[in-house]
Amino acid sequence: MRNLRFIVTYDGTKYSGFQTQPEGNTIQDKIEEAIAKLTGEQVKIAGSGRTDAGVHARGQVINFITESRIPLNRWCVALNSWLPKDIATLSVEEVPLEFQSWKWAKRKTYCYTIRTGRLQDVFHYRYQMHHPTRLDVEAMKTALAHFIGEHDFTSFCSVRSTKPSHVRTLYEAWIEVDGILADSSQVSYNVMNEQDYTGQVIRIYVTANGFLYNMVRIIAGTLIRVGEDKFSSHDIPVILAAKDREMAGPTAEPHGLMLWRVEY
Amino acid sequence: MRNLRFIVTYDGTKYSGFQTQPEGNTIQDKIEEAIAKLTGEQVKIAGSGRTDAGVHARGQVINFITESRIPLNRWCVALNSWLPKDIATLSVEEVPLEFQSWKWAKRKTYCYTIRTGRLQDVFHYRYQMHHPTRLDVEAMKTALAHFIGEHDFTSFCSVRSTKPSHVRTLYEAWIEVDGILADSSQVSYNVMNEQDYTGQVIRIYVTANGFLYNMVRIIAGTLIRVGEDKFSSHDIPVILAAKDREMAGPTAEPHGLMLWRVEY
Repeated sequence: MRNLRFIVTYDGTKYSGFQTQPEGNTIQDKIEEAIAKLTGEQVKIAGSGRTDAGVHARGQVINFITESRIPLNRWCVALNSWLPKDIATLSVEEVPLEFQSWKWAKRKTYCYTIRTGRLQDVFHYRYQMHHPTRLDVEAMKTALAHFIGEHDFTSFCSVRSTKPSHVRTLYEAWIEVDGILADSSQVSYNVMNEQDYTGQVIRIYVTANGFLYNMVRIIAGTLIRVGEDKFSSHDIPVILAAKDREMAGPTAEPHGLMLWRVEY
Repeated sequence: MRNLRFIVTYDGTKYSGFQTQPEGNTIQDKIEEAIAKLTGEQVKIAGSGRTDAGVHARGQVINFITESRIPLNRWCVALNSWLPKDIATLSVEEVPLEFQSWKWAKRKTYCYTIRTGRLQDVFHYRYQMHHPTRLDVEAMKTALAHFIGEHDFTSFCSVRSTKPSHVRTLYEAWIEVDGILADSSQVSYNVMNEQDYTGQVIRIYVTANGFLYNMVRIIAGTLIRVGEDKFSSHDIPVILAAKDREMAGPTAEPHGLMLWRVEY
């Protein structure tokens, strides 16, 4: 009997989220079905946390107990051969029997991706929220810094949350920006309205000891309001102190969100 | 009356190719439907060439004659709002009435992308042929150089071709390689079989005055045979001279292929 921990990556576009639902079509279902096909075992996997419908994962962590004697170095390729193309295991290791991927997670990092510019990117639209106008990234960076530390995140949490405490510690948060080159491969954008502006890909990363329901998406939605100059970065401490979901910005669309990394 | 030329990009995954088919569901259909919704006109668009089912385009070129008075700088955003998310116009310009995107094309560039390594990439599998084992890229580069120049490409053309001549001139051809970093974002691959090999993304670019049916996919399939050490790079001139489709490698899968650029 072994407890195996996997790093799993998935494109959440087609699925109803990570966790098993009565209607089916979840990441968890697909992984459990693959394990059943591979080993004949009906296991229940545990994830480091749920991801909502349409949310992606670069480094989700799951674990389960198995009686299978498949050697460790065969598991990933074998499981992947039973998984759909938009779900894959990246690595596996044996962990103590008492390990639970949800309870033992110390730090989680999410990434929220926004693409600005008039034009959509047909090859990345599944993973990027499209925002047609320019955003003030420097103001967004200043605003983001206000989230770092221990806070009551009630303002940045769905009102449907049932958690007893909304206090979480945000360890790190940063923004990375890639310019979109107008002249790459000589594709000409020079007849668009905003002649000098081809857009940017803005990635917001946040690392915390845990996240509340919709927390990253509400932080992203609020930062977008800052980038649009509808909120000031100075509003963030006020919104946090208010503990009122109505004060923060909208919940950004799920498809821009990716579970980046889970640390133990 | 104006003749408008657009650069168009699309993810071909869901479509039955560029050109209108009796069964529908083509890129051409979707663009013509969007034009009809925008202008009320039933136009026939012309593309620089067909792309097969599942093949993508970064820089396809189309043109059509329109009576619409929509200003030039509004066309792309307006058309994109009627197009599905996996098809977008990037730029537009007015061209002489006699311009035809197919007849006037001087040079076309295609890109064929291969991902090596045991693991699939769930975010790019629609655009990359997956090859689980290592390929000898240096041998592939040597082989590719043999294609440059004017040749009869009968060996690298579907037997279903109806073209009167299979002579084409390949102006340029090159290979770009990106390593896949095992340690990016601390995702650990260290328990996989080939411990030091996380894979590569190999992009084969070819520029010619024109391409025959399946030509790039057969060149790619043949280069993969070279990379697997099943063919030698010295076999390429022999295969070209044979003018026999049976001599070349297999036709590589469509989803790795992208129409990169058309020059006039």
